[in-house]
Formats: sequence, structure tokens, C-alpha cells
Amino acid sequence: MLVNRRTVRIEWGDCDAANIVFYPRYFAMFDASTHALFEKAGWLKRDLIRQFDIVGYPMVDTRAKFMVPSSFGDDIVIETTISAIRTSSFDVLHKVLKPAPEGEVLAIEGYETRVWVGPHPDDPKRLKSRPIPQEVIRRLSEG
Amino acid sequence: MLVNRRTVRIEWGDCDAANIVFYPRYFAMFDASTHALFEKAGWLKRDLIRQFDIVGYPMVDTRAKFMVPSSFGDDIVIETTISAIRTSSFDVLHKVLKPAPEGEVLAIEGYETRVWVGPHPDDPKRLKSRPIPQEVIRRLSEG
Amino acid sequence: MLVNRRTVRIEWGDCDAANIVFYPRYFAMFDASTHALFEKAGWLKRDLIRQFDIVGYPMVDTRAKFMVPSSFGDDIVIETTISAIRTSSFDVLHKVLKPAPEGEVLAIEGYETRVWVGPHPDDPKRLKSRPIPQEVIRRLSEG
Amino acid sequence: MLVNRRTVRIEWGDCDAANIVFYPRYFAMFDASTHALFEKAGWLKRDLIRQFDIVGYPMVDTRAKFMVPSSFGDDIVIETTISAIRTSSFDVLHKVLKPAPEGEVLAIEGYETRVWVGPHPDDPKRLKSRPIPQEVIRRLSEG
Repeated sequence: MLVNRRTVRIEWGDCDAANIVFYPRYFAMFDASTHALFEKAGWLKRDLIRQFDIVGYPMVDTRAKFMVPSSFGDDIVIETTISAIRTSSFDVLHKVLKPAPEGEVLAIEGYETRVWVGPHPDDPKRLKSRPIPQEVIRRLSEG
Repeated sequence: MLVNRRTVRIEWGDCDAANIVFYPRYFAMFDASTHALFEKAGWLKRDLIRQFDIVGYPMVDTRAKFMVPSSFGDDIVIETTISAIRTSSFDVLHKVLKPAPEGEVLAIEGYETRVWVGPHPDDPKRLKSRPIPQEVIRRLSEG
Repeated sequence: MLVNRRTVRIEWGDCDAANIVFYPRYFAMFDASTHALFEKAGWLKRDLIRQFDIVGYPMVDTRAKFMVPSSFGDDIVIETTISAIRTSSFDVLHKVLKPAPEGEVLAIEGYETRVWVGPHPDDPKRLKSRPIPQEVIRRLSEG
Repeated sequence: MLVNRRTVRIEWGDCDAANIVFYPRYFAMFDASTHALFEKAGWLKRDLIRQFDIVGYPMVDTRAKFMVPSSFGDDIVIETTISAIRTSSFDVLHKVLKPAPEGEVLAIEGYETRVWVGPHPDDPKRLKSRPIPQEVIRRLSEG
């Protein structure tokens, strides 16, 4: 599977009064990391929307387990990959890694299930799941 | 002029590592306060968009002066009013007030200049300013 | 168990370019909802920290399932309760409810596991779990 | 004066329902850009706090003028420099630049006035302005 690694600087504004990252911020970082994985596969999100006439790949289920906290000034690595692809939905796995004396430690694991959706044929205000195109599956499976 | 007062609880996630509100959060609170002023005038933002066929009233210039900090658990009052209306733009003034032994103290002043815009007639992707409808001016001017 | 219900207005700034709530925002709303449940039990978070000499109750595992989207101008109800209490950790359940013709519909379920922590006795920069005080358990168990 | 340029990707979660950046997000980007300027001068914010025994350099007045909107997938350049240094306060100027056929266009100008503060000698919970150290002034003035 295709894997994307990116480094994210923890900013002052990401942290709460205990000087650790306010955890909803990680979900925003994970969302951007999923888009970055698709960009590595060849599509900015806006291009994906245009090329395949979809609305997007909204989240239906997400989870995160927090093992090691981070503070402002830290640089974390977010490693993102697809852990499963079904007909019209897929799972994403994010690992947050931090440098440590003994190598990298796993600080957070994030899980996502997203659905590939377009406008509903009967009502353009609603959404309807669609089969994920073979070309998308193929490129996400590379690596 | 119409005035709207609303109380906002400072949440844990609004504060930074110095345990004071991360100031960009105030701009989000001010944006919601401007929409709340229009709601008091009679229109949820989505109704305003539908009724007058506009895209919105985007920000062109905003400023805030910070006099007294707030921390999580504080309840602040945001008092919002229109300070000027021109043909196709208007100014908003936000005062953040905090309870104090001697009455309320002025903690922040926020200023906004917004433009009333619709889709550009020659290119629907661009925006074009429009005259603010008289009914909107009339209701914002009440008090 | 104690239950807290609060109504949250979906603001313009909570929504993304598809005009549905950017899902990390729900986690911020859930965090505030957990603090609101403790406030209903008798303690603002800052009082809890002072009275029991803790650092807080950081998140170790959180999940959300999204069934029905919301858009700006919507008022959602977040119903929060404790679903389990162990010696030094507890689970929180959030239900997001939306008004519907047939009564309320369940739009989102959010799950949290949090740990009750104080400063580590050997190193004030680290954290150590502690037993949740009986008085806290008692009040959260009321209803 | 020292100048820092950094490229910021506009993420999906930075944009609102009109698919332009929700403007409070720019203030968060500007805050991070000011810290990045100090980092280029030699100090991560946490090191600055330790070395000079300060609490930070909180914002007292900030303003932004928005000329050209940005949407998700855009890469903007934020160019940051100090525009004035006084005894215990300083001004920061941010220019947001976007690539355009005719070269870069100026999309936003951001202004900040910040104060150099430490704990108040009479009350550690309050803040007191302090003279900015000569070494800090010297390094910010390089370039």
C-alpha cells in the first residue's frame, strides 16, 4: 500500500492550558494527512472531485488512541496508509511517531473509515455512495 | 442601531499553554456574533443568502485590541452592533465585557468591515459587491 | 448516571467547503460537553483541578460514528453521560440528537476513555494516574 | 530586518462553506509565522521563555486586510518581518503572497503589536511588561 510520511510542527495554538496538544487538533492533522496521501497518489482533493464527479469521501467512523503527549515546538511524523479498501468505502491508518533516544516511539494511532460519495441521483442535496474507481484503488495500492 | 449581547463560555480548548484564550479564537467568536446580530434582525445567514441571492458578507478588514485576558471557565459577554453602513459595505463593532467588582470591564474591542457580495454576473466563480437592501439597513438600524 | 443535555448552534466557521461540520469540530464540542457534565456534577474543571490536586482527565481513546450530517444554522443537542467508571479511568458517551419530523434522530455517537491524573511524585513534569475520588464517583452516578 | 518566508498549504479544514479560508485561521497562521521568525532568529518560543524568564509576547493589537481569497489546495507564502521595536513592545508585519501570472500578488496584510512580558514581581498570576533584551533586538534586526 502507498504510505505517506509528513512532519508536522506542533504550534503554540495547537496546545491547551496543560501545554499538550488539544486532541481535536490531531483529527484536523489526520484529515489533512489523508488528503496528502491522495495527493501522493496523484490527486489534490479538488482534482479528485472534478475528475470523478464526487462530493468527497466523508468520515463515517474515526478513532484515536493517545499514548504519548506532544507539546509546542515538537515535530511529529504522521505516517498514513490505507488499511482496507471495500467497494465504496475504505479505512485509513495514521501513526504518529516521535523521535526518541531508542528510535521512534508510537505516540498515537488514528483510524478512519470513509465513504466514496457523489450527489444522489434523485436529490442533489443528498449524498449516495459510489464504487471507488479502479484507478484510485490501483494507485492507493502501490508502494 | 440594533445591539446583540450574548454570553460565551471560554472552553478549555479555547485556551493556550499560558491558559489565556488563543486570540484567533476571538475572531471565530466575533464572526458568530455578527451572524447572531443578523439573526436578531430577522435572518439566519442561510436565509439571508437565499432571500437576497447573495454569497455572503465576507471580511475585508478586521482588527482587535486586547486589554484584559480571559481563561477557561470564564463567561464573557460579546456586545455587537453596526457602527457604519455604506452602499455596499458595513462596519461591525464588538465589545467583550467581563464582570468585575466595579461593574463590567471592557476586555477587547473588535472591528470589522464587511462587503455585501453576490456572484459576479460575468463569471459565477468571482464575487461582486452589491447594494445592501433597504430592508436590511432598516432592520439593522432599529434599536 | 448523571446526564447533561446542551444545545449547540452550528456556526459558519464549524463547516467545511461541503457545508457540513468539519468533523474535528465535534471533538471540541464533545470535550466541552464532558466538562459541562462535570460542571453539572458540581465542579468547573478549574475547581476540580484545585480541589483534588489533579492535572486533569486527559483523553486516552476516543471514537465517533457519524450517521447524519449537520450544516450551519442547525441546532444540535449533545447528550452526555458516564458509561463506565473504573478505579482511575472512566468512559463518556455523547449522543448528538437532531430534531426530525418523527422526533429526534441520533446523528452521531461519541465515545471517550479518560484517565484521572495528577503530577508524578518522582517527576513533576510527568503524569500519574490516581484513584477517582469517591465524591466524584458518587455525584457522577446520580441522576 | 530579519525576514522569514514560509509556504502554507490551505487545508480542507481551513475553509468555510463558501470554500474560502475562514479568516480566523489566518490569525493562527500569523501567530505561527511570528514564532517561526523568532526561530529563524535563533529561538524556539520555549527556549525564549526559558532563556529570558518571560511568559511570552502576547498580542495587544492585531489587524488584517483581505484583498485576495484563497481556497483549499492553494499554497500561500507568508512573509514575516518586524516593522518596529520599542522598549518593551514590537510590531510584526505579515504579507500573504500568492503566485499569479504576473508574479506574486499581495493577498493579505497582517499587523501585530505584541508586548514582551514576564511574571509580575508582586503577583505571579499577573503579567508585567519588560524591556526586550538587546540580543533579541540585535538578531531580529539582522538581515
